[in-house]
Amino acid sequence: MRTGVWLVGGRGSVAVTSTVGALALRAGLAEPTGCVTELPALRAAALPALADLVFGGHDVVTTPLTKKAEALAEAGVLPARLVAALTEELATVEAELRPAPTGERQASVIEEIVADLTGFRERHGLDRVVVVNVSSTEPVPAADPAHADLAALDAALAVGSPLPPSSAYAYAAFTAGCSYVDFTPSTGARLPAVAELARRAGVPYAGHDGKTGETLVKSVLAPMFAMRNLKVRTWSGLNLLGGGDGANLADPAANAAKSASKQRVLGETLGYLPQGNTRIEYVDDIGDFKTAWDLVTFSGFLGTAMRMEFSWHGCDSALAAPLLLDLARLTAAAHRAGRTGPLPELAFFFKDPLGEVPHALADQWGILCAFARGLDADRTEGTPDAVAA
Amino acid sequence: MRTGVWLVGGRGSVAVTSTVGALALRAGLAEPTGCVTELPALRAAALPALADLVFGGHDVVTTPLTKKAEALAEAGVLPARLVAALTEELATVEAELRPAPTGERQASVIEEIVADLTGFRERHGLDRVVVVNVSSTEPVPAADPAHADLAALDAALAVGSPLPPSSAYAYAAFTAGCSYVDFTPSTGARLPAVAELARRAGVPYAGHDGKTGETLVKSVLAPMFAMRNLKVRTWSGLNLLGGGDGANLADPAANAAKSASKQRVLGETLGYLPQGNTRIEYVDDIGDFKTAWDLVTFSGFLGTAMRMEFSWHGCDSALAAPLLLDLARLTAAAHRAGRTGPLPELAFFFKDPLGEVPHALADQWGILCAFARGLDADRTEGTPDAVAA
Amino acid sequence: MRTGVWLVGGRGSVAVTSTVGALALRAGLAEPTGCVTELPALRAAALPALADLVFGGHDVVTTPLTKKAEALAEAGVLPARLVAALTEELATVEAELRPAPTGERQASVIEEIVADLTGFRERHGLDRVVVVNVSSTEPVPAADPAHADLAALDAALAVGSPLPPSSAYAYAAFTAGCSYVDFTPSTGARLPAVAELARRAGVPYAGHDGKTGETLVKSVLAPMFAMRNLKVRTWSGLNLLGGGDGANLADPAANAAKSASKQRVLGETLGYLPQGNTRIEYVDDIGDFKTAWDLVTFSGFLGTAMRMEFSWHGCDSALAAPLLLDLARLTAAAHRAGRTGPLPELAFFFKDPLGEVPHALADQWGILCAFARGLDADRTEGTPDAVAA
Amino acid sequence: MRTGVWLVGGRGSVAVTSTVGALALRAGLAEPTGCVTELPALRAAALPALADLVFGGHDVVTTPLTKKAEALAEAGVLPARLVAALTEELATVEAELRPAPTGERQASVIEEIVADLTGFRERHGLDRVVVVNVSSTEPVPAADPAHADLAALDAALAVGSPLPPSSAYAYAAFTAGCSYVDFTPSTGARLPAVAELARRAGVPYAGHDGKTGETLVKSVLAPMFAMRNLKVRTWSGLNLLGGGDGANLADPAANAAKSASKQRVLGETLGYLPQGNTRIEYVDDIGDFKTAWDLVTFSGFLGTAMRMEFSWHGCDSALAAPLLLDLARLTAAAHRAGRTGPLPELAFFFKDPLGEVPHALADQWGILCAFARGLDADRTEGTPDAVAA
Repeated sequence: MRTGVWLVGGRGSVAVTSTVGALALRAGLAEPTGCVTELPALRAAALPALADLVFGGHDVVTTPLTKKAEALAEAGVLPARLVAALTEELATVEAELRPAPTGERQASVIEEIVADLTGFRERHGLDRVVVVNVSSTEPVPAADPAHADLAALDAALAVGSPLPPSSAYAYAAFTAGCSYVDFTPSTGARLPAVAELARRAGVPYAGHDGKTGETLVKSVLAPMFAMRNLKVRTWSGLNLLGGGDGANLADPAANAAKSASKQRVLGETLGYLPQGNTRIEYVDDIGDFKTAWDLVTFSGFLGTAMRMEFSWHGCDSALAAPLLLDLARLTAAAHRAGRTGPLPELAFFFKDPLGEVPHALADQWGILCAFARGLDADRTEGTPDAVAA
Repeated sequence: MRTGVWLVGGRGSVAVTSTVGALALRAGLAEPTGCVTELPALRAAALPALADLVFGGHDVVTTPLTKKAEALAEAGVLPARLVAALTEELATVEAELRPAPTGERQASVIEEIVADLTGFRERHGLDRVVVVNVSSTEPVPAADPAHADLAALDAALAVGSPLPPSSAYAYAAFTAGCSYVDFTPSTGARLPAVAELARRAGVPYAGHDGKTGETLVKSVLAPMFAMRNLKVRTWSGLNLLGGGDGANLADPAANAAKSASKQRVLGETLGYLPQGNTRIEYVDDIGDFKTAWDLVTFSGFLGTAMRMEFSWHGCDSALAAPLLLDLARLTAAAHRAGRTGPLPELAFFFKDPLGEVPHALADQWGILCAFARGLDADRTEGTPDAVAA
Repeated sequence: MRTGVWLVGGRGSVAVTSTVGALALRAGLAEPTGCVTELPALRAAALPALADLVFGGHDVVTTPLTKKAEALAEAGVLPARLVAALTEELATVEAELRPAPTGERQASVIEEIVADLTGFRERHGLDRVVVVNVSSTEPVPAADPAHADLAALDAALAVGSPLPPSSAYAYAAFTAGCSYVDFTPSTGARLPAVAELARRAGVPYAGHDGKTGETLVKSVLAPMFAMRNLKVRTWSGLNLLGGGDGANLADPAANAAKSASKQRVLGETLGYLPQGNTRIEYVDDIGDFKTAWDLVTFSGFLGTAMRMEFSWHGCDSALAAPLLLDLARLTAAAHRAGRTGPLPELAFFFKDPLGEVPHALADQWGILCAFARGLDADRTEGTPDAVAA
Repeated sequence: MRTGVWLVGGRGSVAVTSTVGALALRAGLAEPTGCVTELPALRAAALPALADLVFGGHDVVTTPLTKKAEALAEAGVLPARLVAALTEELATVEAELRPAPTGERQASVIEEIVADLTGFRERHGLDRVVVVNVSSTEPVPAADPAHADLAALDAALAVGSPLPPSSAYAYAAFTAGCSYVDFTPSTGARLPAVAELARRAGVPYAGHDGKTGETLVKSVLAPMFAMRNLKVRTWSGLNLLGGGDGANLADPAANAAKSASKQRVLGETLGYLPQGNTRIEYVDDIGDFKTAWDLVTFSGFLGTAMRMEFSWHGCDSALAAPLLLDLARLTAAAHRAGRTGPLPELAFFFKDPLGEVPHALADQWGILCAFARGLDADRTEGTPDAVAA
């Protein structure tokens, strides 16, 4: 089952870490640490093998892949020896990275994306392609009546540029018969009109906003307080991060999108929203390793005041990269199994998951495991691939 | 369903906080924060109501209950206003606190405990009594062939004192037809001979070592790392605590028992034991609020080194006290439902639970919820109480 | 040497904690912990004794002193037993608390303040009075040509209200022949016109912004990095605080004044400004105890990247209150010794000290000790008091 | 002024980091970050230039210098590019590293050391040589009457091995007319008999135990609490470290020596010893970067309880290496200036300094600056070098 992974933002830190990692795993040069789909509970036969993934993508920047990989190695995100050992394989991926289409007419941009996706699929004889958005976070777009349904959207596209870029990508993906994963908090497939297109095209999509660090911790700590009937009074946090995404998040509009996404887990798992905020602060020199600090104050029996602090010092790219591979594999398998529309079963991976789903990590894990088992069950009963053969 | 709660160590911090709290809840003076059995998912009809609990106990010290409660209020563990408001109710409990039986012949000590338990049950017309050990942690006892089976134990009791005190209490509880909860890491009912007695007496028991702070956090964080396939390399911790239990844990033997209990969750949930230890250190001036600090180092995708620290500043007595009430209610309900022997379904409450059970908090929670639902189901089908009536 | 201490914001947390503390010390009910002037190195004969301090003040709120003290006791800032023991003494101070003069004409407001100060001095036969501003932080005022010199200011006062309130208080204090301490980051005596008035009136003043917590720590850690030639790359912080001052600082304008004041120490002691900011965030439920967290990243020999985190959990009112007493005693002694204008020697106490002074705490300490010794030396040579007698 | 630096433990992490760093600085490949003697306040003309230092040493291990340097680069202690660029220079130092003399008769061992030192000095035409002990920490030796004076020691050396290895090195250094620096907590020159030899030989020595991390922080924070008259109630710490020194410190005897050394600063700067301990724990996987966590609880005005935590994540070798260069330069300059015996002025560098000296870092800094200025003053008045010429 040859599966294409088309990375929107294919020269960015997350995309390049994923690419180098997938190539390294295939070459037996690394362990699949951080890859959830390599855990026994999720290792489903229905998933495409890592060796079956073919990478391509778009980007607005033009830094050569190897150069970016070397910069990541310098920053401690990747081992330098891997970059050195994978020169040839990286060149093959480099050949499939295209400049992100731009232009005044959004309809033309979408057409070009569709053409690139179709060409990629045909060139490599791929069974299916997953488009994964790992480009910079967009500001929340203004409301637009064209977003409400597909007819209105198509009418608006005939005369203007009604979509934020992430949604234009989702539109193009669905048009090309590709599934779509939004790893960022950007709008993507969340507009009703775009979601409608996914259903019509018969393809699934997943999102939003990969859960890699502080929110991951929140998604186990908040349920812990809830299960123990302890009352969380305040939960405040500060995220210090440098690197590319950090600079972008310094933009207040993008920051607001991200911060809201980060607080959602508290309300959903506690049943109430404690006081406090999560701040994101860009400090260039911090680099690719993010430090998040959280203070939780809570009261226990008879009102006794207590507190907990944690600090998380993680490399966002290294945390996100294996999840990107997991999501590509799971979404491709869901596509093949005939799933269309949102995949709420993948909530485990996201800060701001699609659908009415639990936000406690353990609950999400249970759902994910059942989903993976279901893919295998479908397969046994007569898989689309078998039918196609 | 009038239920007795007999506290071994009834004048200690945990016992007194539980007692004051139960009285305050009954009087409508406090919220049931920290009481797990008051959560919707666990609020089973089969559980005795808080108002049905009657308190008594043993202790080697003689500090009046009110004096101890005032000291706890001074230390910030309890609101002073509650102690003032509950003078009368506390006097009623005071009347049921007995000096802990002591003596050269352990058989006589056990007899006296049995007599005290029986008297307590009869005096108050109790349906059943739960004995809860919240006394100081004992050193790990030396191996003794008399611990292997009940016949050998009874023979040894005829001539000597083969049991550690916590096990003598468990023996007496079972002899008196009471269920038993070990909230400490002491041996209690864990000896085969004593466990055999529980089965013969047809009573259930639960344990060991209430999970109140650092280990609670570990039981959600370690599964998080496991679910994300992140490799935990080291997990080291320091617990700084004052107060009575702290002084006792400064004794290296007791400390060893506790530390081993605290590391178990890591091996069980990660599937391997990372490097590092958990240290307990007594610092008198720290008082009743414990500060625990943990450092976790882990590696992610392609071996990237990352780290997490947390510090937990909690009041052990305030965290333990509501769990003691939960355990008394759940164990009494299990007793009534005809359960005998160990109750592994209560693993949620313990650092070092009985039986082969999951150690991830969310899994333990699922099992606990099913257990509580089961108690209600039993009840509907024809409960022992209905039969007795 | 009877000395008046006139508190602007006399019913606020800091003022009331100072007042209760001074009364408690005088009554022998407390130790002078936190009082710098009680350390051997500073215990100068020239300082007024704590027993010689007489308290009065202005406030816009009308909460009775005892009520506020009880609220502080409830919040853990003060021991309740002190409030109970000092009822009578607090009533005496209550009698000297006046409503803060308000009105359309600032000249009249100033006149009323002068009248209150003069009345206070005469009523109690005080040798001198120190006015201490512990009211809420003001926004930074707009530039105004009337601030440039005293003639322009007096002309502007004749027709309008050119001064921010803190500066109006400084103006009134100087007019009344009182010295002035600005414990807040507000403008106070920093306007050239107001400073000119101090010199003409022959009175000294001190400020700005009491250094109580995070900045205090910075003032020893930053010099440590400097003395070791370690390169601080980033220094970021988050201050979480509730209580009255917190709510006020949530106002972005006041927050900006405070944050700038908090970063100054880094540039001054390191010789360069590292990346990063200090944020202040109001979280009502945090209450009177502030938690500050700082992350410092630095590089050492051959560029090796290292890091330090600290969290400070302090009670601002309890930290500030004894310093207020120190400042009142030192400023009164300086006044008596004939000092006029700014007192840069008191930089030890301030985040944003007056004059070109060192910002490393140890250097400020050396200067302060010399200043205290100097006061005694002046005194021996023929003190103003001796002359007056 | 050509100066030899003879490193006892010359193939260890600290020694190799110092060596690579000194060579890199000389070659203009690195900045002198972390070198205290490169700060304007200490840049004395009397100090030997970095370019004048010549390195040699002893070690019991035989790992080639370049191999060790590469391992340090792999561990993130050194930039790999420096090791690559300095191959030739490292080979020159390699030629001056000798196996540590061993043998049954300590007198012979000392003789061999003396011969190696003398040979090194003559081979390179060195004006003087500083012996620096950076070998593994020894256990505290048993008391021995032979340590009391030089005559007794010499008698004991004639028949046995009365000295711990570090003291044998100090003895040999002094015999060879070399100055001596003890960067470890080992005994070194602290025995009266060995100190006597230093005075007779007319050479100076410095020590003990380089202050690189947690104790450095304590030496500014403890004085901060003292200057503010805040009462430190408890100070507890945990040091987690891997690498070579860590493994050695896991030995309880060496651990005890180090821990005592680490607490001394508190008693000396606070004037009393707060409760609590500093623990050192070896966790192999932590590697060369040490994490120390400290909890300080203190009370302020009217007894209000407050707390501070810090965690320090530093690379001990990177922190120690530049100080080693500083100490070699300063001790050589003191030797040249005619100083003999202990150099208490260098307390700034040590956890457990020689003599009755202040332990607050700022005070030690002041003394160090005066010392450096004094060296230049001596020089102007007619330096030993001028006389020798």
